Amino acid sequence: MRAAVVRALGEPLVIEERPDPEPGPGQVRIRVEASGLCHTDIHAARGDWPVRPNPPFVPGHEGVGLVEALGDGVTHLTVGQRVAVPWLGSACGRCEHCLSGWETLCERQVNTGYGCDGGHAEKMLARADFAQPVPDGINPMEAAPLTCAGVTTYKALKVAGVRPAQLVAISGIGGLGHLAVQYAKIAGATVAAVDVTDDKLALAAELGADLVIDARREDPGEVLRRHGGAHAALALAVNEAAFRAVNSGLRRGGKLVMVALPAHGTIQVPIFDTVLGGTSVIGSIVGTRQDLAEVFQLHAAGRTKVVYETRPLASVNECVDEVLRGQVKARIVFDLGTES
Amino acid sequence: MRAAVVRALGEPLVIEERPDPEPGPGQVRIRVEASGLCHTDIHAARGDWPVRPNPPFVPGHEGVGLVEALGDGVTHLTVGQRVAVPWLGSACGRCEHCLSGWETLCERQVNTGYGCDGGHAEKMLARADFAQPVPDGINPMEAAPLTCAGVTTYKALKVAGVRPAQLVAISGIGGLGHLAVQYAKIAGATVAAVDVTDDKLALAAELGADLVIDARREDPGEVLRRHGGAHAALALAVNEAAFRAVNSGLRRGGKLVMVALPAHGTIQVPIFDTVLGGTSVIGSIVGTRQDLAEVFQLHAAGRTKVVYETRPLASVNECVDEVLRGQVKARIVFDLGTES
Amino acid sequence: MRAAVVRALGEPLVIEERPDPEPGPGQVRIRVEASGLCHTDIHAARGDWPVRPNPPFVPGHEGVGLVEALGDGVTHLTVGQRVAVPWLGSACGRCEHCLSGWETLCERQVNTGYGCDGGHAEKMLARADFAQPVPDGINPMEAAPLTCAGVTTYKALKVAGVRPAQLVAISGIGGLGHLAVQYAKIAGATVAAVDVTDDKLALAAELGADLVIDARREDPGEVLRRHGGAHAALALAVNEAAFRAVNSGLRRGGKLVMVALPAHGTIQVPIFDTVLGGTSVIGSIVGTRQDLAEVFQLHAAGRTKVVYETRPLASVNECVDEVLRGQVKARIVFDLGTES
Amino acid sequence: MRAAVVRALGEPLVIEERPDPEPGPGQVRIRVEASGLCHTDIHAARGDWPVRPNPPFVPGHEGVGLVEALGDGVTHLTVGQRVAVPWLGSACGRCEHCLSGWETLCERQVNTGYGCDGGHAEKMLARADFAQPVPDGINPMEAAPLTCAGVTTYKALKVAGVRPAQLVAISGIGGLGHLAVQYAKIAGATVAAVDVTDDKLALAAELGADLVIDARREDPGEVLRRHGGAHAALALAVNEAAFRAVNSGLRRGGKLVMVALPAHGTIQVPIFDTVLGGTSVIGSIVGTRQDLAEVFQLHAAGRTKVVYETRPLASVNECVDEVLRGQVKARIVFDLGTES
Repeated sequence: MRAAVVRALGEPLVIEERPDPEPGPGQVRIRVEASGLCHTDIHAARGDWPVRPNPPFVPGHEGVGLVEALGDGVTHLTVGQRVAVPWLGSACGRCEHCLSGWETLCERQVNTGYGCDGGHAEKMLARADFAQPVPDGINPMEAAPLTCAGVTTYKALKVAGVRPAQLVAISGIGGLGHLAVQYAKIAGATVAAVDVTDDKLALAAELGADLVIDARREDPGEVLRRHGGAHAALALAVNEAAFRAVNSGLRRGGKLVMVALPAHGTIQVPIFDTVLGGTSVIGSIVGTRQDLAEVFQLHAAGRTKVVYETRPLASVNECVDEVLRGQVKARIVFDLGTES
Repeated sequence: MRAAVVRALGEPLVIEERPDPEPGPGQVRIRVEASGLCHTDIHAARGDWPVRPNPPFVPGHEGVGLVEALGDGVTHLTVGQRVAVPWLGSACGRCEHCLSGWETLCERQVNTGYGCDGGHAEKMLARADFAQPVPDGINPMEAAPLTCAGVTTYKALKVAGVRPAQLVAISGIGGLGHLAVQYAKIAGATVAAVDVTDDKLALAAELGADLVIDARREDPGEVLRRHGGAHAALALAVNEAAFRAVNSGLRRGGKLVMVALPAHGTIQVPIFDTVLGGTSVIGSIVGTRQDLAEVFQLHAAGRTKVVYETRPLASVNECVDEVLRGQVKARIVFDLGTES
Repeated sequence: MRAAVVRALGEPLVIEERPDPEPGPGQVRIRVEASGLCHTDIHAARGDWPVRPNPPFVPGHEGVGLVEALGDGVTHLTVGQRVAVPWLGSACGRCEHCLSGWETLCERQVNTGYGCDGGHAEKMLARADFAQPVPDGINPMEAAPLTCAGVTTYKALKVAGVRPAQLVAISGIGGLGHLAVQYAKIAGATVAAVDVTDDKLALAAELGADLVIDARREDPGEVLRRHGGAHAALALAVNEAAFRAVNSGLRRGGKLVMVALPAHGTIQVPIFDTVLGGTSVIGSIVGTRQDLAEVFQLHAAGRTKVVYETRPLASVNECVDEVLRGQVKARIVFDLGTES
Repeated sequence: MRAAVVRALGEPLVIEERPDPEPGPGQVRIRVEASGLCHTDIHAARGDWPVRPNPPFVPGHEGVGLVEALGDGVTHLTVGQRVAVPWLGSACGRCEHCLSGWETLCERQVNTGYGCDGGHAEKMLARADFAQPVPDGINPMEAAPLTCAGVTTYKALKVAGVRPAQLVAISGIGGLGHLAVQYAKIAGATVAAVDVTDDKLALAAELGADLVIDARREDPGEVLRRHGGAHAALALAVNEAAFRAVNSGLRRGGKLVMVALPAHGTIQVPIFDTVLGGTSVIGSIVGTRQDLAEVFQLHAAGRTKVVYETRPLASVNECVDEVLRGQVKARIVFDLGTES
């Protein structure tokens, strides 16, 4: 089977021919149909983050495909069943985080496409317990972005406690943001979308944003304050300016949720406004299997629309360049089915 | 009556003789017995904060005394009743914050000793609805620090959601911190007290802290992590180093609550750790009337101990100097009863 | 001015000519445009409940109209402004309930059309602080049912903590239920509507219910369990059979919220299932001013549709009979504007 | 090894000699030191509940002992380590309950001493992931009652959301109640203990109850209402009279948590009071592994005291009789160590 492999951090990926992997106890082998390209894959391939992956490895944590082999002890999945393999490749199941609904914080988690091989390949292994069944009727190309971009923004809105009649700002309308706009609408919020390009603002409006703020022309904080201030804001492209803008647009008691993971860096939080306004800055990382199940359920019910473009896996390095140049409208998904 | 008056921002306070104020509709006049000196009074007198008070004014938002005159329409208080007048001098009662249990975030609030005259005087006015009855058996000298230092730390622990069996770090053991240690114990937590002076660390231990961390000798973050990391931390003396130390000692999912209000400044929040660890930085400002009622209830039940020193009002400027030099063990309270 | 007056409990209402009432301090006089008829009005007029109202009194707690006179001290409302006067005529503003976002539980509350004269009249008084401004663009005829039927069901869903991707059962699709269906949809839920008449089930489907259960033909509990069980259920018509049916359809951890107030009676809660399933039975009564503000905001944003029929106030006794016979599709609203 | 076996529902238990069980993959074998006798064991042995266990089986879900053999794949426990085996013998780890911190509601859970053999034996098997490590310094005789009576009441207080300065009623001071009193105190509550025997009331007072209510002499509801009403009540001995008494003593917004599991029966919930008072009746069943870890942590920190009596396993049937006659002061624990 063919796989896109990081042989050395910082080098281009290499398309390799590899033997099909054999599932160990509790694992399944999956014939991948679709695998979304996330900015995290690029951070992984470059070794941008404090804890680095060990090459050679296959990135990709939005892999969707059909189970084709079951390891020992796997009884709840069947061959031929469609599953998705998210960032949370496994968690210990026993720590205080796993036991309190926060497996995403497990200190012993293994991450797909980072700590083990991921979805940018024709075949992949997964822990059966963490391979999320994809409901009938969901296109695998759409399931892929939901597996990370979807669940991550869905969870961030949960973390913010978004509910009907609240004003929610989504800062950054791309692969994550276009789904965040929809989830915030589903939760009953009034949604303000913030971006700096015309087509993304147009996309946000089309997807239901009630308010579209072009940060090139107006200060998002000021616009949000004119509307009473945001109850919650998602900082999907965490940079100092964007963060400051939406943070200053929070209502008293408002919550700013950070989800993006730049290679490094800090954010300046103003103490006086934060204390006097009783606001929060909260970190949020992907979502649990339950969150993903809900994301799939909402999509199966026709409540979300995924914007994506398909590409062959062979073009992986060109796709990386496209993402880095900011030219991708929403999400690139490798279509593994068409290549084999 | 005599009052300590700020005649000009940045100038020493002046002890003035003033006519007794007359309570308007909905107000009461109080013969002050005790009035605590809070660092906020000093910020007020200096005009340190973005929104400045208008001299001349009387600072003080830990005033405790006996009602001696009722304005029109006041029926739920009686002459002779002991009340406390906190920072929250009034709130609108109709906004989304007031109606959802967060009157401390009301945009139309008036603050005692800042937006109206406060407790550093022999007599003061208060909105009857915001003058908190002090239960029988509480010494007014002890009620005073509870009225701000107490309620503020009590609320901060509520904001952090502290509950039994959690590890809670209290950074800064002074007027606020010595009460925070006790409230965290009352809530069932394991308490780690962090400070840089021997007597404050000794005080924390005496008040029940399970773990005492001398930040001069060891890194609080490291010590906390050795104990599994803090579920919550209160940054009572918000400075960059102290903040960074306790923030790095949070457990995944942990919450850092900031309550101190330096004149200006920002805090650097590390993005990667915050997102990956799902941690929060939360601002918290004083507490509601209900929080204060609970603080008084706990004290009346003998569950807290207030450390304070009494002084005559005439020494107000010397006291300010003492606070600024960091020489005060816990809280200075002006004893108005002994002077008249 | 004319008013529908209960002169004696259990007797038909009498249309009386009365002098216009004069607003006292903190009150406003309102020229009523619309006043919804709620089953509670009938319980009031009959003295059905443990604490009885004192005749003569004017029922009605869904009064909507224009402010025409301001009492002393009222500054935040203006003459000509449209307001709604809900069941919560006033609350103390100081108790633990008022201070924690639960003014609806205030022990000292006064209820409109019960403890003081209500909206079934051409003119009425209200506490200015509790007269809820109606946003521009909302028809007073539609505002009236929102003022009780709307806010009550909206709140009940909040109490149940309903959020996206949950299954929510609405048992009883009438004046309350037809709004409950919409609020549950706005909150992102999958909605199962339960009733026993064709037109109400058809109405529910039209308003967005995903699942329509005819309790004459199938057991709602069984249908709900087939769909995994309800996360929450609203028992809007609390009777033993309906309660048992939806309660048995709860998922583990599910919540049943009771909002109807029959004259008397108890509900049998099965202990074994409740304990093993970790389910809850929760009482919920109307909503706060903040809840009502949100209800109006959602309607102003075009997100809800109110089903009602208008009648002249003179027909009040015929309308009562209609409600008692169960012949009203959704809500009767007295149109006070057309009569004068 | 010897075990107390239920050979037929409703028959006395039989002490049998059995071969040591062999741990399968993911299991461990434990040499039992202590095993607590819970009323549930008696319901199990009699087949009292809707879903019946299949004889022959060994009851007991408060087993504590030393790991003596590890099944395949078990790496996080070591031979010689002390563990406790609670009611939750295993859960699926994948359902919405397991993934949201509510494994106790898992529909696929297996219960120790009910769906598989339990602790009333010299040796037992357990799923390694569900065998809870017992911290050093905890006496196994004390660990046993904590494993069910402790965690169940600890969890019930969590479910009620008990926090400092609240009034909490504990109805029934026995094996569960004497621990509930302590946990409520640890959480900062004011505790009212309700019972009908002098020694249990004395025990409650000794363990810190602030208020002791003898239900033979006064109406608990009335006493609680005189103190403002309970924020929460634990109905540990669910019978109609006791339930009604504490339910009527709830404050508005109060929560009654039911934990006892009588063989059958229902509870009458008054609709009017529940709706108007916004109260809740909530079922709660045991606790999660995390709850148990916290219970052990609190005990290791010296914050709880366990009242128990030890007996030889051979006396199991006499002990059952004692429990049924209500003669046991707190908890009977079989001391397996002394017999072998």
